[in-house]
Amino acid sequence: MAEFSLIARIAARAGRRDDVVLGIGDDAALLRVPAGRLLVAAQDTLNSGVHFPLDTPAAAIGWKALAVNLSDLAAMAAEPAWCLLSLSLPADDAGWVDGFMDGFTALAAQHRVALVGGDTTRGPLSVSIAVHGFVAPGDALCRRGAQVGDEIWITGTPGDAAAALQRRQVGQPVEPALQQRLDRPQPRVAAGRELRGLASACIDVSDGVLADLGHLLEASGIGAELDLARLPVSTALARTVDGPARWELQLAGGDDYELCFTAPAARKADVQAALQRADTPGAVIGRIVAGSGCAVRQPDGRPWQPPRRGYQHFDPALVASDRDRPSA
Amino acid sequence: MAEFSLIARIAARAGRRDDVVLGIGDDAALLRVPAGRLLVAAQDTLNSGVHFPLDTPAAAIGWKALAVNLSDLAAMAAEPAWCLLSLSLPADDAGWVDGFMDGFTALAAQHRVALVGGDTTRGPLSVSIAVHGFVAPGDALCRRGAQVGDEIWITGTPGDAAAALQRRQVGQPVEPALQQRLDRPQPRVAAGRELRGLASACIDVSDGVLADLGHLLEASGIGAELDLARLPVSTALARTVDGPARWELQLAGGDDYELCFTAPAARKADVQAALQRADTPGAVIGRIVAGSGCAVRQPDGRPWQPPRRGYQHFDPALVASDRDRPSA
Repeated sequence: MAEFSLIARIAARAGRRDDVVLGIGDDAALLRVPAGRLLVAAQDTLNSGVHFPLDTPAAAIGWKALAVNLSDLAAMAAEPAWCLLSLSLPADDAGWVDGFMDGFTALAAQHRVALVGGDTTRGPLSVSIAVHGFVAPGDALCRRGAQVGDEIWITGTPGDAAAALQRRQVGQPVEPALQQRLDRPQPRVAAGRELRGLASACIDVSDGVLADLGHLLEASGIGAELDLARLPVSTALARTVDGPARWELQLAGGDDYELCFTAPAARKADVQAALQRADTPGAVIGRIVAGSGCAVRQPDGRPWQPPRRGYQHFDPALVASDRDRPSA
Repeated sequence: MAEFSLIARIAARAGRRDDVVLGIGDDAALLRVPAGRLLVAAQDTLNSGVHFPLDTPAAAIGWKALAVNLSDLAAMAAEPAWCLLSLSLPADDAGWVDGFMDGFTALAAQHRVALVGGDTTRGPLSVSIAVHGFVAPGDALCRRGAQVGDEIWITGTPGDAAAALQRRQVGQPVEPALQQRLDRPQPRVAAGRELRGLASACIDVSDGVLADLGHLLEASGIGAELDLARLPVSTALARTVDGPARWELQLAGGDDYELCFTAPAARKADVQAALQRADTPGAVIGRIVAGSGCAVRQPDGRPWQPPRRGYQHFDPALVASDRDRPSA
């Protein structure tokens, strides 16, 4: 099977939308953005051995490659619409592509995302997706905008994916609930959209809560305090690890794809109602304060210094301890 | 230097446009598509050792990665606007990134393309670009639409890039004019736009004239005849190779990034005027005929069977003779 058979295999499962004037099969896609809406666009690449372990099932890679991109749209409060997919494969493997598309289309269907173009090439296994959505000009959530008096919220239960990865790497059994969170993160698209007009700033958590909240604080020119006692913990994670080791996974683990956002304390009930409409759990984990940086408090009130703040590609400290990452 | 320093290095040279509401530095870009225009979107990936030889200068990779994507917009008659860039690098190398951005921004500035997002990750060297432009709904050129009575045109002089690659791979000196065509293809954006309302069908030639014309014929449900005597030949290529070896490079070589398009024979003078306005050379190389497939005639009128029709990833015949490609 050659390149064009692979493309046909993928195109057959591209999904349909009325605003796709011309999809896969020409030099470019022709797409209709609704009047009065901004285009929202992001692109993220997953490389084998860096963003997922080498033996990750194809379906999990297909799901996750789309999920990490939809998570970026969610953080902007955008409505997903289309994506482009570049797939680099070491060999022509129809079974792998079918598995990949099983995961990809399962998530694409949930969010009505149509695949409208891209390419398949030979190369080390890598998936690059560009995702597109819409938002009304005043509705987009950004990293800047957090203010003193805002509370800091997190959706879901951070740390689960990082715990799954860590246990896997030391050869210990992984609870299915944690493995699911590593392989099939659920992008918080509904929550992002419900938070329009409520959240003052928002970011998706991919490199760890502290690292990504750090970006939000920097963009907003402000500081924060986090309370470890308020961190929401999944049942599976609580069974697996506790204390500082858990805090580190939850605040600096990465791969969460949750939303971290700020909102005025006075709007707390509105935020709770918005998250309920989105069927998304969420909790206040701290507050915005004057200054810069993020202080973390232990349950007894003492300050806590995390040993690392999150994942960075090319970070010398992390490259030295690459045993922590699937790329090792 | 870590990931965020690399991003800052790239972001400093992103380019500006009034329709970029929010560019690099948030979870996604916010972009304004002009009223009454369709969004045109394409994504192409270049992998080291597959799409360019391992020792290709960083600036040539930066230029070419954008050029192959702009060539897709050109074929749709679109006006380029924005792109997203995913860069996978084996190591943090500021000098390489600066060189890459030199080539990238040189071409981006020519076409007023702003870089609005993407990511940098660790992995085997790979560049994936998603490019975006606009076109009025009735103006887009597609692969379908060629009709009996149309002439087949090609811009530029196909075969130059393939000749450069071939000579390089057998260790022979490469004329600078041919090397330039391999490293810095010039996407035919102006020609595509001038051909709106004139060309009946259009495709960009990346895998070789026969392969890509084949896609156009298939999409149009029609056949073609090509005359080898009418193929435009660059001075440098004519000095380098002749006869069937030249024909093969010109029709099945790949990496041309020229436009192959069809137009009614009665509009020949209009097409010539359009190409002149675009400052783009072009020539008639054949005609659309009833049926399917493409017949090629030698200068003496006899039929010619090319030994291969173009480049396909995962083509077993090509993988077996991979010595022809930089990936070997």
